Amino acid sequence: MVNKKMYQLGSAPNAIRALFAYGLARKAEIGEENVFDFSLGNPNIPAPDAIKQTINHLVELPSNLVHGYTPAQGSVGVRNAIAASVNRRFKMNAAADNVYMTVGAAASLTISLSALCQAGDEFIVINPYFPEYKIWIEQAGGACIEVLAQKDSFQLDIAAIECALTSKTRGIIINSPNNPTGVVYSKDSLVKLAQILNAHQEKQGRSITIICDEPYREIVYRSVKVPFIPTLYDNTIVCYSYSKSLSLPGERIGYIYVSERMPDSATVYLAVCGAGRALGFVCAPSLFQHVIEHCVEEQTDVAAYAENRALLTSGLSRLGYEFVEPEGAFYLWARSLEPSAEAFAERAKAHELLIVPSTSFGCDGWVRISYCVSKKTIEDAMPAFESLMKEYS
Amino acid sequence: MVNKKMYQLGSAPNAIRALFAYGLARKAEIGEENVFDFSLGNPNIPAPDAIKQTINHLVELPSNLVHGYTPAQGSVGVRNAIAASVNRRFKMNAAADNVYMTVGAAASLTISLSALCQAGDEFIVINPYFPEYKIWIEQAGGACIEVLAQKDSFQLDIAAIECALTSKTRGIIINSPNNPTGVVYSKDSLVKLAQILNAHQEKQGRSITIICDEPYREIVYRSVKVPFIPTLYDNTIVCYSYSKSLSLPGERIGYIYVSERMPDSATVYLAVCGAGRALGFVCAPSLFQHVIEHCVEEQTDVAAYAENRALLTSGLSRLGYEFVEPEGAFYLWARSLEPSAEAFAERAKAHELLIVPSTSFGCDGWVRISYCVSKKTIEDAMPAFESLMKEYS
Repeated sequence: MVNKKMYQLGSAPNAIRALFAYGLARKAEIGEENVFDFSLGNPNIPAPDAIKQTINHLVELPSNLVHGYTPAQGSVGVRNAIAASVNRRFKMNAAADNVYMTVGAAASLTISLSALCQAGDEFIVINPYFPEYKIWIEQAGGACIEVLAQKDSFQLDIAAIECALTSKTRGIIINSPNNPTGVVYSKDSLVKLAQILNAHQEKQGRSITIICDEPYREIVYRSVKVPFIPTLYDNTIVCYSYSKSLSLPGERIGYIYVSERMPDSATVYLAVCGAGRALGFVCAPSLFQHVIEHCVEEQTDVAAYAENRALLTSGLSRLGYEFVEPEGAFYLWARSLEPSAEAFAERAKAHELLIVPSTSFGCDGWVRISYCVSKKTIEDAMPAFESLMKEYS
Repeated sequence: MVNKKMYQLGSAPNAIRALFAYGLARKAEIGEENVFDFSLGNPNIPAPDAIKQTINHLVELPSNLVHGYTPAQGSVGVRNAIAASVNRRFKMNAAADNVYMTVGAAASLTISLSALCQAGDEFIVINPYFPEYKIWIEQAGGACIEVLAQKDSFQLDIAAIECALTSKTRGIIINSPNNPTGVVYSKDSLVKLAQILNAHQEKQGRSITIICDEPYREIVYRSVKVPFIPTLYDNTIVCYSYSKSLSLPGERIGYIYVSERMPDSATVYLAVCGAGRALGFVCAPSLFQHVIEHCVEEQTDVAAYAENRALLTSGLSRLGYEFVEPEGAFYLWARSLEPSAEAFAERAKAHELLIVPSTSFGCDGWVRISYCVSKKTIEDAMPAFESLMKEYS
């Protein structure tokens, strides 16, 4: 009596969310301070004060100006503000009509994929990857083609991507800074990616779009620079979200930026508008559209994440854990102490450590430790990480 | 290079939205007070004061409690509050796990349709109908079957619905109080609808769900009662939105209520969760989930719409216009003064009257006049309606 695929997706929820739910129940059982929950990317850093001040200001305005419908693509004010910010920061030439406001990054991706995909099209993802990518690509009628990242460094493997290009390739999702690995893809590798994609586009007479999933753009360490892909490759759509940069994950506010350098940019933008309509996104939440218009240049509190990162990496190094040195986002990608990541994560659970096995991201042998938590959680978890290590020595 | 269907949907926007956009441009040209815009269902009545007070209170709480992710189906608090309200008002036995929070009524419908529809399933809509229904049904992989409402009264035509039932019928969308006609379907007709659907379910051994699209539930006049369909038919999903009842259309907050009386209610609820995930709805906006938790019993200011309704109906009656006496919502469904509703709406435009031709809703010969506007707009528009009438006499 129901759609079988939807039932399966609903009854086998995302493993990360399931671990988060286990954590909530376990905290209720043995006390919050005794569970070390590194499962979810739910920022512990508060939203900037400017958000609260802007909301306080906005709710004094006439109700229909604040809470009324905006145009489907978003208010002109916020789209102008975002275009101006993109232009200032990255020397682009965006206009309001290159920006489409969305209900967060997930919506940015489902709308972009539906706009681009014709039945049978292939979209490449870099393994390990955020598990919903496959669901969203298939929902849009496409096929999800996995290409492994480089061993140990988890940088792009350009040769492997080149091998995966076919006459059906329609796009590639690039997520940098990366969830789950914390890697920022080097400018060199992205220039090479642009080269092989341009060559393949020409050879096939076919458009190949890079979809940049960029919720972690602002969260980088040690003055690492995140290359802005639209400056390196014309056929690019950016899917942005304020969930992580402004600590507003529940508010579902983000945007799609259809690069003005894209061939047929206006056509793609209209398809984005159509996809938003077909999927039931009438407009992005209006109060937060207005909030973003006022707070578009607000800074992310990266220092707090940097402190967590230092604490966690030095602590785990000392205990003998191996991991990829994180350059961005707030995830530590650590090697499992046994071949099966799931078995390892289960053992960690017995020490009240909630970490996500890499099988959730399509590969084995690693775990993701999300450090957008309180400093205290990291400090208090160290004895548990120590006991866990001892079990394996 | 793009999905053709999405491009078409994006480049031929909803005619109502197009008229609204024309109105904005025209107001900029000749002054706001000289354009009589009856095009859109964008409530002119402000949101209740309690909304502002609740927002002011919430933003003082810790940031991650207000702006953090909620579970995908919504916070337990707001779902409990809605279930309790449904139980109190309609003597149901709903629990939090019958309620799934959404980004407004459009999302409620796309998620419900995707949850229920298997390829080739048929969904019945009552003509005239909200034009996006067809897009959303087809997007979910279904076929949209139109059944005409009764002539002139625009009540349900039960015999016609019975004729339209086939071995592929999977559901019917019922929208009462109705957009565009303002009609509230009688209890008698809904009881008969339940009878024919139950009989057909039994005969076909197949589930047929009523999807109630209910954004106008609270907006009724002259103590008309809107029957609560889950009390009349078990196999029912309610799609609710606070857009109209609390004047929050831009905030995109609503819910799906999967009736606990539905056979396999838990299975349908899981399919709803799966569809929300597949379409890219991570959670409904968190601030407004918390607002609704506090304001679930807040009353709609129906008196203001009733005053508009009285003003408009008495004014147009006096001028000789014919219309369906509106029982609910804030739309007047008036007979076009010539056979072509589009030609009539164009003539009205020359008098700066923006009204929506019934062809936007699938039939000809009528227009929709949206009266969720200021009293002054209605008063000032009367001479224009008079001149328009004179053109036809």
